[in-house]
Amino acid sequence: MSKNYKMKWWGWGDENVTFKMKNYPGIIKYIREKFKIQSLKKRPLFDLEKIEMTKKFLPETIIGEFKDKIGAEKCFSNKQERVLHSFGKSYKDAVRIRSYKIKNAPDIILYPENEDDIKSIYELCSKHSIAIVPFGGGTSVVSGVEACKGGKNYCASVDLTRMDKITSIDSVSLTAKIQAGKFGPEIEKELGERGFTLGHFPQSFEFSTLGGWIAARSSGQNSILYGGIEALVSSLTIVSPGGKIKTLDVPRMACGPDFNEICLGSEGALGIITEAVVKITPAPARQLYTMYMFKDFKNSATAAQMLAQEKIPVAMLRVSDEEETEAFLAMGSGKKNPITFIIGKLIKKYIHSRGIDTKKCSTIMVGFEGENHEIKYLKKRVDKIFKSFSPVCLGNGPGKKWLKDRFFLPYLRDEFMDNGLMVDTLETSTTWSNLENLYSKTKNKIREVYSDRPCVVYTHISHLYHEGASLYTTIITTQDESDPVGQWQKMKDAVNNTICESGGAISHHHGIGIDHKNGLHWNDEQMKLMKSIKNELDPEGLMNPGKLI
Amino acid sequence: MSKNYKMKWWGWGDENVTFKMKNYPGIIKYIREKFKIQSLKKRPLFDLEKIEMTKKFLPETIIGEFKDKIGAEKCFSNKQERVLHSFGKSYKDAVRIRSYKIKNAPDIILYPENEDDIKSIYELCSKHSIAIVPFGGGTSVVSGVEACKGGKNYCASVDLTRMDKITSIDSVSLTAKIQAGKFGPEIEKELGERGFTLGHFPQSFEFSTLGGWIAARSSGQNSILYGGIEALVSSLTIVSPGGKIKTLDVPRMACGPDFNEICLGSEGALGIITEAVVKITPAPARQLYTMYMFKDFKNSATAAQMLAQEKIPVAMLRVSDEEETEAFLAMGSGKKNPITFIIGKLIKKYIHSRGIDTKKCSTIMVGFEGENHEIKYLKKRVDKIFKSFSPVCLGNGPGKKWLKDRFFLPYLRDEFMDNGLMVDTLETSTTWSNLENLYSKTKNKIREVYSDRPCVVYTHISHLYHEGASLYTTIITTQDESDPVGQWQKMKDAVNNTICESGGAISHHHGIGIDHKNGLHWNDEQMKLMKSIKNELDPEGLMNPGKLI
Repeated sequence: MSKNYKMKWWGWGDENVTFKMKNYPGIIKYIREKFKIQSLKKRPLFDLEKIEMTKKFLPETIIGEFKDKIGAEKCFSNKQERVLHSFGKSYKDAVRIRSYKIKNAPDIILYPENEDDIKSIYELCSKHSIAIVPFGGGTSVVSGVEACKGGKNYCASVDLTRMDKITSIDSVSLTAKIQAGKFGPEIEKELGERGFTLGHFPQSFEFSTLGGWIAARSSGQNSILYGGIEALVSSLTIVSPGGKIKTLDVPRMACGPDFNEICLGSEGALGIITEAVVKITPAPARQLYTMYMFKDFKNSATAAQMLAQEKIPVAMLRVSDEEETEAFLAMGSGKKNPITFIIGKLIKKYIHSRGIDTKKCSTIMVGFEGENHEIKYLKKRVDKIFKSFSPVCLGNGPGKKWLKDRFFLPYLRDEFMDNGLMVDTLETSTTWSNLENLYSKTKNKIREVYSDRPCVVYTHISHLYHEGASLYTTIITTQDESDPVGQWQKMKDAVNNTICESGGAISHHHGIGIDHKNGLHWNDEQMKLMKSIKNELDPEGLMNPGKLI
Repeated sequence: MSKNYKMKWWGWGDENVTFKMKNYPGIIKYIREKFKIQSLKKRPLFDLEKIEMTKKFLPETIIGEFKDKIGAEKCFSNKQERVLHSFGKSYKDAVRIRSYKIKNAPDIILYPENEDDIKSIYELCSKHSIAIVPFGGGTSVVSGVEACKGGKNYCASVDLTRMDKITSIDSVSLTAKIQAGKFGPEIEKELGERGFTLGHFPQSFEFSTLGGWIAARSSGQNSILYGGIEALVSSLTIVSPGGKIKTLDVPRMACGPDFNEICLGSEGALGIITEAVVKITPAPARQLYTMYMFKDFKNSATAAQMLAQEKIPVAMLRVSDEEETEAFLAMGSGKKNPITFIIGKLIKKYIHSRGIDTKKCSTIMVGFEGENHEIKYLKKRVDKIFKSFSPVCLGNGPGKKWLKDRFFLPYLRDEFMDNGLMVDTLETSTTWSNLENLYSKTKNKIREVYSDRPCVVYTHISHLYHEGASLYTTIITTQDESDPVGQWQKMKDAVNNTICESGGAISHHHGIGIDHKNGLHWNDEQMKLMKSIKNELDPEGLMNPGKLI
């Protein structure tokens, strides 16, 4: 069984945890106003038994061969396992699971515990024409773990979560060798006990694995300080049907093309990443997350650019545009009582006196981590840059709240869906000089596609680089109940197209999977090169068919 | 003609510049003591006409086809051009050129000025079975530009130095689009006029090109601050016989494997890198290079490790071991006069009183660059780390001298060779926990190979990373005049082997070329994968045969 057994089969997160919207009157008020939702609907009861799915085609004799070869305790084909491994956790996936119909479910779910198991799986899958979908935490939002057969007869989901050891820690070189199936919280817990952190916190952190991060080229909330996953991987092992590659564990070399960088982003299509040596860092002594309010997004984005180009090693920086700031301020507001009401009025008055319209402004959240003296020095440098934009510092309260809730927000999508709303996010990246262009074109395109219904589109900049940044956009609109997938696909196609035409990356950190393939900016030669690489590592085309390539 | 026409055909550097050893009495004294060299020999007169080389096989009719296709002014086959493009600038190359015999000289030297020229060259080379050796500044020290035919009938050296424009500068995104054949000093000069720097200063800086840096995965003296060339490249264009790849100009993406990282280190074997968008940085306001003297290499290396792992963004750091410190102190000493003699005595007495033996100690040179307040803050942090090792700060004098001479030292090799000495350098990298092991095994192996003659082997750490560092070793011994190449090859093979067995990278920044192929740590699967990649981009095997793959 999967170690992520606590994950809801029908939605996001731990099945014992629910986001209780009624505790957030601001959110209720916000969606009531924006989407004319009168009263909250009760969550429907999700019944696994009701799900209609493709029958398991794989004959029992073949299942028996797997059991004989790697052990019966590593082979499953019961309904819950098949449902959990049918697809990922995107809005499209959530809509489909709520429709109670699954078109493609894997025939068998295999839990290898070592490389030999994986090699045995390759042998049997080759013998019986079984497509292989490597599966970590299953949190892909680009259909990256969807149980597709390609041209094969059957489909096996290969769940890596039993390969979940920290094999060794080198406390001199500050690296740890970790198996691919280890979940984020377990990595941080075990490293934390030794005083270290990996520092990789993607939004999916609680339910995603090291192998998934590498395969999808994920990036975490603290990417400014620690880099994306590619900056954290020192060496790795990939076991492919064609053979095994283990890269050399050195900090840097000039020995031809970088094999790590071929496996990073390989999305299960080239083989199974089994293990990586990653950089670890002494856990920061202190965290300080502060929020600043700026006149508008143009000002805040420029301030962020200056900070990035001065290479100031803050731990996190998020620039929310006017719409995101409005949504977050509205959603974050609690029950009114006379005292907070008066304080709120006074604060607003002060902010207004500084030339900022609290109804139409932008915010930056900056996270500092380290020793006190480092934080002090960095904050001084940040304040110096910000000064020319005259922002108002809102103090550390919002930052504390954000740190507390940062992995909790994704739960909210299920609540929104319960109430007939569509929620999706998309992300891209570009250079600083093209940021405004890409930003406005993307937002306008979404508004254009959903011009027939109430629609909120808000964006933040969340990963900053020397030459550019990522844009992360959230879309909330009312669901077209007659064809929710079609409604989503129409928007996705249009936006993919707009992003490509505007010089943005089709993905900054979600990956390609199936959903971004039509926007992938490879020319013919790149496609042919990728096919050559795949053909060498996966000559029979067993690995994750239909994704990436 | 090559824009590097000023480079000596017989040795290192500008033909109008000579390292005058007589101005450095310390060097003379040092080699006199170490290698029993009594008096300096006069430099022989190098006469190009005396060189015996393979005849030009390529028929005039084919040369005519090239001239018709790309223009006669881009096609050369005169002696000087052929000599200059026969090989690189390693000790082995210098020995061979001094022997007045060149076994493999290119039949033709072509100077493309644009992509169309390159495509035409590919067409004609394919038609007439001509191997192609891409050539930038020609400073390879691993036989990376050697004019090999592989299985082809002829060999063309394709010199990129006429593709030398800065096409555009994006002063918002802080990037510049630069053609591959542009030399280091020209890049810095033109960027400098706009207030920027690329920050890439390999030892070969004065005579190497952007394309060469990318093809060989070079790294510069300021790599701690700016990263190796892979960290500076935002996107690139490679024109291969199989087709053209232009990567997307975004700061980061999750769109499968990183094509930049396939082209970086491709060593001309996959195609010709024609252009790259690179990150540029406002030129630092100030430089401060300071030297510290430590008790021994163990202490200084540990101090450097701590500094690297605290991610302190110094511009440069070099840790010299006891032998390198001894050599540099000896070589750097000037003519004695009574006053400097007394001051020197007093300084030595002070250093001794601090528990450091000036005859057997280690030094760290730290470079700081930036605004005054940044330098002040960084130096404070560095001093805090160093404090527990009780080093003696030697001030900024040695740093100023090093900055002044840093590209001048390679000239010294020719002087040493004039005096019957062999001088070579080698470099590797490993994790901090393996550094001492790799360091001592490498040095011991060299001493073992040359145990029959006086031999000096010294090492510095010059590129620092979170999880490890590079080791750069210089070897000086007396030349075996009967077989200098054989003498060198014996050492090279032994050390390649030792480095591999000890877990080091066969190259940190010199590349593979021919000289490191026998130490390349790819397994069968990696080799097969690289061959697949090459086969797609260069199906006829025209590109730089015998190098890397």
